[in-house]
Amino acid sequence: MNKPTLAITIGDPAGIGPEITVKALNHQEIREKAFYKVYGSLSLLQEACTLCHIPLSLFESPHIQIVDIPTLSPGDVVKGRVNGDCGKAAYNYIEAAIQDTMAGKADAVVTAPINKESLKAGKVNFIGHTEIFGTLTHTPDPLTLFEVKGLRVFFLSRHVSLQQACHLVTKERIIDYVQACTKALRQLGVTEGTMAVAGLNPHSGEHGLFGTEEVQAIAPAVEELQQQGYAVVGPVSADSVFYQALQGKYNSVLSLYHDQGHIATKTYDFERTISITCGMPILRTSVDHGTAFDIAGKNLASEISMMEAISVAAKYAPCWTKAL
Amino acid sequence: MNKPTLAITIGDPAGIGPEITVKALNHQEIREKAFYKVYGSLSLLQEACTLCHIPLSLFESPHIQIVDIPTLSPGDVVKGRVNGDCGKAAYNYIEAAIQDTMAGKADAVVTAPINKESLKAGKVNFIGHTEIFGTLTHTPDPLTLFEVKGLRVFFLSRHVSLQQACHLVTKERIIDYVQACTKALRQLGVTEGTMAVAGLNPHSGEHGLFGTEEVQAIAPAVEELQQQGYAVVGPVSADSVFYQALQGKYNSVLSLYHDQGHIATKTYDFERTISITCGMPILRTSVDHGTAFDIAGKNLASEISMMEAISVAAKYAPCWTKAL
Repeated sequence: MNKPTLAITIGDPAGIGPEITVKALNHQEIREKAFYKVYGSLSLLQEACTLCHIPLSLFESPHIQIVDIPTLSPGDVVKGRVNGDCGKAAYNYIEAAIQDTMAGKADAVVTAPINKESLKAGKVNFIGHTEIFGTLTHTPDPLTLFEVKGLRVFFLSRHVSLQQACHLVTKERIIDYVQACTKALRQLGVTEGTMAVAGLNPHSGEHGLFGTEEVQAIAPAVEELQQQGYAVVGPVSADSVFYQALQGKYNSVLSLYHDQGHIATKTYDFERTISITCGMPILRTSVDHGTAFDIAGKNLASEISMMEAISVAAKYAPCWTKAL
Repeated sequence: MNKPTLAITIGDPAGIGPEITVKALNHQEIREKAFYKVYGSLSLLQEACTLCHIPLSLFESPHIQIVDIPTLSPGDVVKGRVNGDCGKAAYNYIEAAIQDTMAGKADAVVTAPINKESLKAGKVNFIGHTEIFGTLTHTPDPLTLFEVKGLRVFFLSRHVSLQQACHLVTKERIIDYVQACTKALRQLGVTEGTMAVAGLNPHSGEHGLFGTEEVQAIAPAVEELQQQGYAVVGPVSADSVFYQALQGKYNSVLSLYHDQGHIATKTYDFERTISITCGMPILRTSVDHGTAFDIAGKNLASEISMMEAISVAAKYAPCWTKAL
């Protein structure tokens, strides 16, 4: 199997992105997983190496190519501070990485964190990565998948109130999402196994005793999907479905609200929970933490999430299918 | 420090209770943690030993005393089957253990699982352990605490629908619960550290952007409690509060609905999540799984939860305070 080429964007220059990028690439086992194109400013990456006591010869590795976008240098950046120029530069790195990957020059994009406020200050008209990727890849509705140690979690809803999320648990929406999630898994090369739809209420409502969504929406949706040939079961009580998936019983879990899946993955292993954006013409993985302005520029940031985001991209890239 | 005396009830005779009891006690490190009074039928315990290839000499240990309640023998019990006589016997074991512990003959009760349907068939007018303990110890409102590897989780509500749970997130209820939970921690000897109140909505609602409970109920409750001198913070986003508590940042988390705390603890470590019933004149810990009728009598049940329930009881019993 040929090694994939991964495009890494270094994120907001004022955050921990440059640090965790060089720290991750400094691990030999990470370097050997793929070829890397690193999108960012070479001088900022050199600064990060010096900060983290990593020899600059890292960039001479045959596995690493820096795609230098030199709009910002260390002198332009105050670590930990919101800065429109940083927001704009972070956007430029992402834009270049997406364009190259769309053009076949890389097999996937791995992103370091960006800062919403800096984007706004830089007049970049997107609230975050998902929206940038959606627009630049012409994908109206990208799908977020979390992965931690083989546990894959999709979300029926995300940034809405919990009460609103309860209202979004409808038969139609579940059918739509299971179909889209199944397609997303196939795109990643995951064609075996069964998806579990989580329950919404405690003990999945105990047959309607507390909460009726299982009886009225989830079970009928699963039944209809099964009739359509989908390998899906549910509702499975939320307090055991993630554990069972970790044991290998399911290939993924459709969680019904933001925190249901977030609590499971992040309590299980906070640092190794990474995000995959599915349903696009290119594959993208990402750390699931922020720019950590409080510790930026101090050589305190852990590269574990970045290593994991890289590893997951390297795992899926060879099996990944552009169109289905 | 003197070793505590723990009263163990063997649970429903048709379930895995007798098996996990003898398997747990067969571990030397468990035996050495405490003195044990085991409430159940000696002949059923002997049967469990034979099934699990444990020598009957286990019961000759100076650490173990069987409180024989011989109403049922192996011949009366079909493993894995609902049986009113088993429900009644399981109740009798619990009743005797509570009476003895109330009378000072033991320091805490550790319970193996019972079966709701068997209780009902045996005309035992309680739906579960908590109700039995509440009534027999004259505690109107026992408080459930989950513990897994040092993470302690309380619940603002439990067996209600998620929509109903959202409505129960009120300033008054949070104040009441933090006060009761603080008292419960003090009863366990936990007087240091800070309690965290979880958020309800994704990212704690992002200042009211999606969901207003944080702004309208949780933050004002925490503020008032702080003014009253309580060591409490919140709302802390649910996708990081449990991880942070595991890191030692909080002595406990008040979760706002059943699954919030259950997903966190059980995904983190399903088998080691155990339940503590607080606010009573006696201490009680319990495994948090059921009678597992499908594997009862087959020597397949894992004793890990039982070992953990025993270990936690042995940890707290010496510091436990009856009245505050």
